[in-house]
Amino acid sequence: MQKIRSGTLAALLLGSLFTPVLAHAAPADSAAIRDAALKDEVAWDFTEGLTTEVGPRPAGTPQEARAREWAVAKLKALGFSNVRAEPYTMPVWLRGRDEAKILSPFPQNLVLSALGNSGSTPDKGIEGEVVYFPTLADLEAAPAASVKGKIAFVSHDMTATQDGSSYGYFGAARRQGPSIASSKGAIAILIRSIGTDHHRLPHTGVQMWADGVTPIPAAALSVPDAEQLVRVIGRGQPVKLHLTLTSKMLKDQPSGNVIAEIPGSDPAAGVVVAACHLDSWDQGTGAIDDATGCGIAAAAALQVAKAGQPRRTIRVLMAGAEEVGGDGARAYFKAHGTEKHALAIESDFGADRVWRVDFKLPQGHDALATSISAALAPLGIGASKQEAGGGADIAPLVKAGVPVIDLQQDGTRYFELHHTPDDTLDKVDLAQLRQNVAAWAVTLNLVANAQESMGIK
Amino acid sequence: MQKIRSGTLAALLLGSLFTPVLAHAAPADSAAIRDAALKDEVAWDFTEGLTTEVGPRPAGTPQEARAREWAVAKLKALGFSNVRAEPYTMPVWLRGRDEAKILSPFPQNLVLSALGNSGSTPDKGIEGEVVYFPTLADLEAAPAASVKGKIAFVSHDMTATQDGSSYGYFGAARRQGPSIASSKGAIAILIRSIGTDHHRLPHTGVQMWADGVTPIPAAALSVPDAEQLVRVIGRGQPVKLHLTLTSKMLKDQPSGNVIAEIPGSDPAAGVVVAACHLDSWDQGTGAIDDATGCGIAAAAALQVAKAGQPRRTIRVLMAGAEEVGGDGARAYFKAHGTEKHALAIESDFGADRVWRVDFKLPQGHDALATSISAALAPLGIGASKQEAGGGADIAPLVKAGVPVIDLQQDGTRYFELHHTPDDTLDKVDLAQLRQNVAAWAVTLNLVANAQESMGIK
Ligand SMILES: [Zn+2]
Ligand SMILES: [Zn+2]
Repeated sequence: MQKIRSGTLAALLLGSLFTPVLAHAAPADSAAIRDAALKDEVAWDFTEGLTTEVGPRPAGTPQEARAREWAVAKLKALGFSNVRAEPYTMPVWLRGRDEAKILSPFPQNLVLSALGNSGSTPDKGIEGEVVYFPTLADLEAAPAASVKGKIAFVSHDMTATQDGSSYGYFGAARRQGPSIASSKGAIAILIRSIGTDHHRLPHTGVQMWADGVTPIPAAALSVPDAEQLVRVIGRGQPVKLHLTLTSKMLKDQPSGNVIAEIPGSDPAAGVVVAACHLDSWDQGTGAIDDATGCGIAAAAALQVAKAGQPRRTIRVLMAGAEEVGGDGARAYFKAHGTEKHALAIESDFGADRVWRVDFKLPQGHDALATSISAALAPLGIGASKQEAGGGADIAPLVKAGVPVIDLQQDGTRYFELHHTPDDTLDKVDLAQLRQNVAAWAVTLNLVANAQESMGIK
Repeated sequence: MQKIRSGTLAALLLGSLFTPVLAHAAPADSAAIRDAALKDEVAWDFTEGLTTEVGPRPAGTPQEARAREWAVAKLKALGFSNVRAEPYTMPVWLRGRDEAKILSPFPQNLVLSALGNSGSTPDKGIEGEVVYFPTLADLEAAPAASVKGKIAFVSHDMTATQDGSSYGYFGAARRQGPSIASSKGAIAILIRSIGTDHHRLPHTGVQMWADGVTPIPAAALSVPDAEQLVRVIGRGQPVKLHLTLTSKMLKDQPSGNVIAEIPGSDPAAGVVVAACHLDSWDQGTGAIDDATGCGIAAAAALQVAKAGQPRRTIRVLMAGAEEVGGDGARAYFKAHGTEKHALAIESDFGADRVWRVDFKLPQGHDALATSISAALAPLGIGASKQEAGGGADIAPLVKAGVPVIDLQQDGTRYFELHHTPDDTLDKVDLAQLRQNVAAWAVTLNLVANAQESMGIK
């Protein structure tokens, strides 16, 4: 604790050589808010409660409705103002049975999980021969005749990265692979999970069919199962599989965003949106994706409020649907896009330690960025030259030009758990969660109290 | 490599102060065998082949029959003599569906796996209220009236240990819990997995019903699910579950041991049995339990043979049924118990580094123990004062008085994988596997060539 305090001072003194820090919230505020946030109980309590009392909560399902009710009650109990659910409707894909077995040459079961919007097999399943592509590029390059009538299998590896950038690259196998396979006449597609672990727990995730493409059954094998299938294929005999991947699509199901506010003293100064998503994938309890994000946003807003009413309203947005296509973000923008938004920030990458801060602020706001960087440095967070991009739940705001800050979490172990049954409370590290709350609290405090005019209407 | 050689010399010199090492195999033999075994390819090849080309192989099933055929062909190809399967029959318990959900107060699915010999629910499942016992002792102490008609839930934790001793203690919840619960009138029992990981992968395992006790559905929750259920119970409302645990029992199914030999030059000197088991649990591919054990035993026997014909026959015993009650061991003893057995040794605790050697040799064999210890020391293996006990596949031999040596593997991560779907090839570490082969090869070489008369007829 002592170490943190002296670090703060050093960082702030350094910052003050270059920028008029005193124009923003006083340095003492940041240190006090940070120290209080490092003892935060709210983020853990929120995460524990949501994952225990609701559990899995796929968007547009009765479980998400329970999550919504749970969150409204919780946020009211925590003292937020203007707490409400804002309903909308959306299409829902529902998982059925996920089963696969090698019929020949070496009969055995494989563990897999259908991808969002997967086509459904009949109840009795389908049979087919596997055609193997080590990478997505190999599938793309393959003549349709080599794929037609077969089960395409793409199995490229993915390495853990601190900034999560490997997900963008390798995730293409999930996002585009199914449409490519279908367009070449495949009867189904299997991919190696977009994940960095070695457990028999597949990573699901959404994919959208390209225009005009017929949905086919699409699923991710766990990493050990994908490696097993590669070995079996390597024996050189034709490999025949049986797949049962039943699922269904429902139209116009109820979903909704949950909103809660810390009202600011200056309504004309614009709203600071602190976002996360309340929905989760169906097989885990969505602890790191994204109960912690919602816990962090709520806890940080409360830490700011405890230090005194901020100038700007802090609006916590818990989007009801992120995993399956951003319906929550679109509904929020439709309802609130014309309001003045000073800044948007989102937590949706687990709750391991924040290690970097990225900014996208308007011209003339370097002083604010510098003061935030200085307040974050004692938490071990370095400022970057990269432009902040926000997350899916604030994407329409960011696209419309709302300023954004990213508090980047360490993603090294995120893709061991992401979208698997293993995304459960025991994976959350309390000390790291609290560091997140502290980083968020000092950032929200400085932004919400900044004297600059900022944001767009 | 250099380090290993000089270590060897030092250890052997130390040993020679106390015992007539030269009466046994020459020191050069151990060093040469060890160095060759540290480059072994057979153990990996065996493990990779069995887990890929057969996969899961529950005892008494068609998969075990395929494993038997596979092993016979493999051992013949490797150059063993007298390779054959020795058939017997046994009862077989077959898993059906394993499903559980919390009906109230917080509806959500739980991940679990039926225990061996579990009773079956009807296809539509059963419903009941949970009665929670933090430890097995709490269940034992409970009045029957508090358990009757309910689903008993025992959730005591287990810590990883290098020697695996925590399994003996905490495994009682699996071995005795179901019979105790049934005798008090429970309609089912759930236990926290006997495991040290935090993945949504339950640990199954066998349990035997005590005499006169009615089988009830019995299953292990994954560790995160058990912790979730404890949290839900902690909210103080009655917790109602729906369980679907279907399974069936078959009588007199074919199983069989696989035997392969390195014939010795002196038939009167007795046989050295090197054992493992070929069967596995049904949800993983049985890589560490116990494909590696069979790979190590076979590879080590071949390393000895490469160095010259041993005095004693080395008989590799791959038992066809260990997991479900030792039918393979009993069948072997029935067929071969009257033959002269010089020593028995077994590998059935994964393939992480051997760290300790235990002996149970007849009076007057201290010199042999000392020379083996000296040959193992360069591999980082220390001799203990504990008496060797052998494993399940050689238990009848050990009970009959056959000498035994235990090469104890490091069990620190064994119970992260044991009896789960996660027991797959990717968990095997090649360098550690080779250290096992080296430890086994030097031990088998010294025992098979020892000039002492040993063993019982
Ligand atoms: Zn997310
Ligand atoms: Zn075993």
